[in-house]
Amino acid sequence: MYGAGDVRVEERPDATVQEPTDAVVRVTLACVCGSDLHPYRSKPASQKGSPMGHEAIGVVEQIGSAVTGVDVGDHVVVPFGFSDNTCDICADGFHTACPHGGFISGAQAELLRVPQASGTLVPFPADVDPALLPALLTLSDVYLTGYHAAFVGQVGPGKTVTVIGDGAVGLSAVLAAKQMGAERIILMGRHEVRTDLGRRFGATDVVAERGEAGVARVRELTGGAGTHVVLEAVGHMPAYEQAYGVVRSGGVISRVGVPQYTDAPVGSASLWGRNITLNGGPAPVRAYLEEAIRLVLDGTIDPGVVFDAEVSLDDAAEGYRLMDSREALKVLVRP
Amino acid sequence: MYGAGDVRVEERPDATVQEPTDAVVRVTLACVCGSDLHPYRSKPASQKGSPMGHEAIGVVEQIGSAVTGVDVGDHVVVPFGFSDNTCDICADGFHTACPHGGFISGAQAELLRVPQASGTLVPFPADVDPALLPALLTLSDVYLTGYHAAFVGQVGPGKTVTVIGDGAVGLSAVLAAKQMGAERIILMGRHEVRTDLGRRFGATDVVAERGEAGVARVRELTGGAGTHVVLEAVGHMPAYEQAYGVVRSGGVISRVGVPQYTDAPVGSASLWGRNITLNGGPAPVRAYLEEAIRLVLDGTIDPGVVFDAEVSLDDAAEGYRLMDSREALKVLVRP
Repeated sequence: MYGAGDVRVEERPDATVQEPTDAVVRVTLACVCGSDLHPYRSKPASQKGSPMGHEAIGVVEQIGSAVTGVDVGDHVVVPFGFSDNTCDICADGFHTACPHGGFISGAQAELLRVPQASGTLVPFPADVDPALLPALLTLSDVYLTGYHAAFVGQVGPGKTVTVIGDGAVGLSAVLAAKQMGAERIILMGRHEVRTDLGRRFGATDVVAERGEAGVARVRELTGGAGTHVVLEAVGHMPAYEQAYGVVRSGGVISRVGVPQYTDAPVGSASLWGRNITLNGGPAPVRAYLEEAIRLVLDGTIDPGVVFDAEVSLDDAAEGYRLMDSREALKVLVRP
Repeated sequence: MYGAGDVRVEERPDATVQEPTDAVVRVTLACVCGSDLHPYRSKPASQKGSPMGHEAIGVVEQIGSAVTGVDVGDHVVVPFGFSDNTCDICADGFHTACPHGGFISGAQAELLRVPQASGTLVPFPADVDPALLPALLTLSDVYLTGYHAAFVGQVGPGKTVTVIGDGAVGLSAVLAAKQMGAERIILMGRHEVRTDLGRRFGATDVVAERGEAGVARVRELTGGAGTHVVLEAVGHMPAYEQAYGVVRSGGVISRVGVPQYTDAPVGSASLWGRNITLNGGPAPVRAYLEEAIRLVLDGTIDPGVVFDAEVSLDDAAEGYRLMDSREALKVLVRP
């Protein structure tokens, strides 16, 4: 990406093992992330492009001398954050804050360098039904980001949930909240095709209104109280404001939209006065990955449904355009 | 209080039952709260004074026609927030957000009106050892506010904790963290008499430095990681900034200092990027009260140690002065 709206597909040097802990993965499937749309809309033009993409499944092509537990030829899910999976912070389940970790870039490519390969890559059977590959790809980021929101939001039976955002992460959060047994799931979004999909995924109510009207509508639906949990999957300030407007006293606002702000209301009138919990962050996908692979393989969950378009790697720019224009919810990129 | 520094003791009409759900309590012991110092330092001068005080124990003198479960003559703890104790929000344990609730005022007095008396007042035995009365008074606010911080902060065995603030709430948070089995308790405070008391209450380390130097010191004490939990018992922005500086990735910042700000950093660099949880609020003392009374009566906890001075009601202004000047940690007011 060379700047806002300027996505180019270029020949670049092949990814290589640079550290003994690296692996190189041949990408089978990648995709475009909602968070890629932030730079797509605002990145200043530059001479030096940035490699894009942080979600992939693929086959290990090369490993560094210190890599264990993963072999050349393994079919793997690549979490969007890499981590050592051995430190105290990883042991706590917060792999995206691993002191030896970082974020994948350049997954929209044929070959991808993955640092900390031993701690990061998780294999799946090579003979898996190809129809499940998109679902496995969602475990790289989008589905498990929605899942993380619901997990730290303490969604469970008897809980009422508002999901803010009808993008692929928001709809994944609906799927995850449903999977966790939420009693009621109110989806806030304005794009009917997407909110219809949200209903199929488990949303019990859809609120198209935004801002104060949206808050009033959710309150009306919940007898004035708001919902126990709010899963915020947008990242802009109006979504944050909606979140504290619709959360029930003593409830949780869990944010997985990348915040496009630094400061926000947290004082007596917004969070503190009603004992609201604010949490969330970059999803530690790795913490949830083995279990999620198992659930995809045995058919318990099917998060692959978030993909509604596919482009070849050569047409990656078209993939961005489709998501930016909201013609597509989530676009597969096939090298 | 007629304005900053202007506390007067006046004859006022006796408190009376105004609603059928009210009780009037004859105050045995009241006290001055750290949060009373905010207006003591900044309240604009006014012709019409504000009744002060929200912490009390006493004897029920009158009850309204709808009051049940509490009788004239009962010795009771008055939580600083009143609540119906029957609604869904109270059932969730968030009594300070009860839709029929509010906050006590005018406890620094001989007689005190308590709304929602049935849901609010909790009796204790009339023949209790008088030496335990100060401890019972702390259950009105200060100790259980520290306890609430530790409770929502998820303090427990194996957890490392930083307490920011060496006031009576901060020291109560130390006591509560100790009671909950915290592995390590780092107290950030600069007043040696108070931090010495903090050590007696269970602090394993004291950090006198503030700001960046304080953050660096806590990080140094914890191998660079910070602590799992931060209990913020001040309410000013520098304390908030210290809190996210010393919290471990994936950890919890629990705030019980009344925020003297509306907005604060919550973006990628402060909270979100490291999956920090922010919670806390006005302590729902009522939720913890029966159990805490039991623990005081059987000697398991002795939070009365936070009181180090006493004044008569006539000398209430001197009580404020002692706390404001930090000559006293927490001042009993005896009508």
